[in-house]
Amino acid sequence: MATEITKEFLENIKRLISATDDTALLQLLSEEHPADIAEIIDELGLDDATYLFKLLDSELTAEALMEINEDDREKILKNLSAEEIADEIDELDTDDAADIISELPQERVTQVISELEDDEHAKDIVDLLRYEEGTAGSLMAKELIKVKETWMVPTCVRKMRSQAQEVRRVHSIYVVDQENHLIGRLSLKDLLVASAKDKIANIYIPKVDAVHFNDKGEDVARLMQKYDLEAIPVVDDDNVLLGRITIDDIVDLIKEEAEKDYQMAAGITEDIDADDNIFTKTKARLPWLILGLVGGLAAASIMGGFENALTQFPELFFFTPLIAAMAGNVGVQSSAIIVQGLANDNIRGSMVHRMFKEIGLSIVNGVILAGLIFVFGFFLDYNISISITLSISLIMVIILASLIGTFVPLILDKNGIDPAVATGPFITTSNDIFGIFIFFYIAKLILGF
Amino acid sequence: MATEITKEFLENIKRLISATDDTALLQLLSEEHPADIAEIIDELGLDDATYLFKLLDSELTAEALMEINEDDREKILKNLSAEEIADEIDELDTDDAADIISELPQERVTQVISELEDDEHAKDIVDLLRYEEGTAGSLMAKELIKVKETWMVPTCVRKMRSQAQEVRRVHSIYVVDQENHLIGRLSLKDLLVASAKDKIANIYIPKVDAVHFNDKGEDVARLMQKYDLEAIPVVDDDNVLLGRITIDDIVDLIKEEAEKDYQMAAGITEDIDADDNIFTKTKARLPWLILGLVGGLAAASIMGGFENALTQFPELFFFTPLIAAMAGNVGVQSSAIIVQGLANDNIRGSMVHRMFKEIGLSIVNGVILAGLIFVFGFFLDYNISISITLSISLIMVIILASLIGTFVPLILDKNGIDPAVATGPFITTSNDIFGIFIFFYIAKLILGF
Repeated sequence: MATEITKEFLENIKRLISATDDTALLQLLSEEHPADIAEIIDELGLDDATYLFKLLDSELTAEALMEINEDDREKILKNLSAEEIADEIDELDTDDAADIISELPQERVTQVISELEDDEHAKDIVDLLRYEEGTAGSLMAKELIKVKETWMVPTCVRKMRSQAQEVRRVHSIYVVDQENHLIGRLSLKDLLVASAKDKIANIYIPKVDAVHFNDKGEDVARLMQKYDLEAIPVVDDDNVLLGRITIDDIVDLIKEEAEKDYQMAAGITEDIDADDNIFTKTKARLPWLILGLVGGLAAASIMGGFENALTQFPELFFFTPLIAAMAGNVGVQSSAIIVQGLANDNIRGSMVHRMFKEIGLSIVNGVILAGLIFVFGFFLDYNISISITLSISLIMVIILASLIGTFVPLILDKNGIDPAVATGPFITTSNDIFGIFIFFYIAKLILGF
Repeated sequence: MATEITKEFLENIKRLISATDDTALLQLLSEEHPADIAEIIDELGLDDATYLFKLLDSELTAEALMEINEDDREKILKNLSAEEIADEIDELDTDDAADIISELPQERVTQVISELEDDEHAKDIVDLLRYEEGTAGSLMAKELIKVKETWMVPTCVRKMRSQAQEVRRVHSIYVVDQENHLIGRLSLKDLLVASAKDKIANIYIPKVDAVHFNDKGEDVARLMQKYDLEAIPVVDDDNVLLGRITIDDIVDLIKEEAEKDYQMAAGITEDIDADDNIFTKTKARLPWLILGLVGGLAAASIMGGFENALTQFPELFFFTPLIAAMAGNVGVQSSAIIVQGLANDNIRGSMVHRMFKEIGLSIVNGVILAGLIFVFGFFLDYNISISITLSISLIMVIILASLIGTFVPLILDKNGIDPAVATGPFITTSNDIFGIFIFFYIAKLILGF
């Protein structure tokens, strides 16, 4: 399994860096995987990290650079010369190279590009920089293997050999016509079992999934996941082959998407780590807390409006946190199901049908919970009219909360807004307010204060 | 991009099924991708779905069977004979085949296995059935390409050709010694660029990541993601090569894990869809709602204990939903960060260090929010002593809530319990109770009732 980066191992590296014992460091680290180098870099201070970057071979550090977090990368790159950055970039695939370059300050971009060794590579990277972030174009790499339909199998294998030197993973082989239009694919397996006398035109598979460079990354992820694809070609309006997207980049995207929905639901606006600094964390968390605060003040003023119930039915005020909590919980449950359903593209059927289902479910849950109120109320010696008020309010609040939780994300999604923003604090806060209002309003009708 | 399953298309299929127009159905569907067939099946009733399964080629339906949800699969399989099930299984890779067979009732398992056409395939499937669910062994497939170190490149290519017929995707080629011990790998690229005179022993890469059959699925997922692997071999205690796990199965696992954390946080105990029936949904949602109800009743009884403040400081009771909501929100934020950090294995550093960081962050957030209370209080004409009470309580409650949100999941994780259970309703409910208690206790100290 993975190399464990132990405390002792790290101490040893720090000691060797301060002793500038380059031989020992090279011996210790040059067999490590770039992902492990990245983990080590994460644990070191900036000076030590920069030292390692300058010492180790670019082949190792370039990949590591991709794995460390953006803030650390920015700081380390600041400490490197344009030429040193270009050395790293020379080692990267075009998609990763373009990602790194797009993070550099504008004035360094041209410098670094002019220092790149391979002109073809540089041209490909510059080409990738023009695609919009989050689109298929920004995710693709230029490295791929393509063959012409007119070739014979031995020509194909020979030409592929030279292309393969550039490509880290072969995956599919794309078949193009003379004008570089994507017309099909050739699986490696097919090539392995083909005979030398076959012509590519006779053995390729004319059916090939492809995405347009302007398609959204999430849609590409969904497609690759649905059809279990490990790479997908990217084409332009005329079906000209531009590049390909591989599953390893998509895995990160799928995970980030799923995690982002959870973070939004938890009231965290940006992707933050447990180890980010206080300022970053506050920026991500405070806005939702302020929303909660404002909601709480609104709830307080609603309750102030029912102040005349205070002397006669003080219990009502003891139960508001219960009503608010139930409204919040139900809303979060409903919205989570919808947000995940939308993310997985499996929300079907009409709105009206869904509404009746939600109301049905809410009544079932509400009646069971109302029954429990009576049971607890009996043992805790609640006034029977209070129990009735609580029960009826609970059922009404649950129905309303689940409708809000279901339809707010659906409506946002229909209007092109990420439905995940509606889950968590936003739903909780609005459900708190509505829930408390309904509770006191029903109490007023039943108890007549 | 993906085929869109339109309403018209589905209506057409239903019509053709009721007219038993098999020719038209076959023409319409035999070019579809199994994943699309699965989507169509999802939309049909059981009888229509069974009809399609019996009509269409197993090559198409077998893969579709893997994609539909477990409940539907169970029902359809009930309608098929052991021989028909065996036909489907014959088309599947060993890992998928074993998954389907393990879902069958015990008495049908032997029947189906005895109907399988290929004895080798049957033996491999039976072998896979003995690995524990959720382990690397249960995720692996037996299909892989392996070569012996003693072979020459042309022998290797010839032998690989026959193996490749069985394997849908080649990925890596594993190199074994005479006793089937895994000793390295050969990339397809290396083979493409190798010359005919090379011996495998001279061109293979001796460094190969592998997992043990008893390793947990999540750990395998993390490893493959960290090192961007697309397939990983599985070995036993003696390093004998048993099978391999491919990235497509891991993608599903990664997504499920991330979604499960979110669902748990939203108070949903089981993996449910927006379209599941009311009973399934109630079963998944009600337990957490009951927890919320009990928490609310506990909060009510705490407030009942401070009843004597009611006449003098009724405002306190208006602000309890605010305090409870803030305690809940802060707790959910903190716990979400920890749960995701643990899932991604990037929680480092000591508990004490983390505690001070959380307290620091809470004080920053708390002081800002307390300041806002004063601003709002000024405009809304709050009594100054109420504003002071609210502010101090808010800071204390935020500190406590963030500590609970941070350390409950950490402690659960240390004790081998999934920390995701602690997020959502559990944290919210306990934070509500603690928050309200602290608020009234501080109010009592400051206001002296």
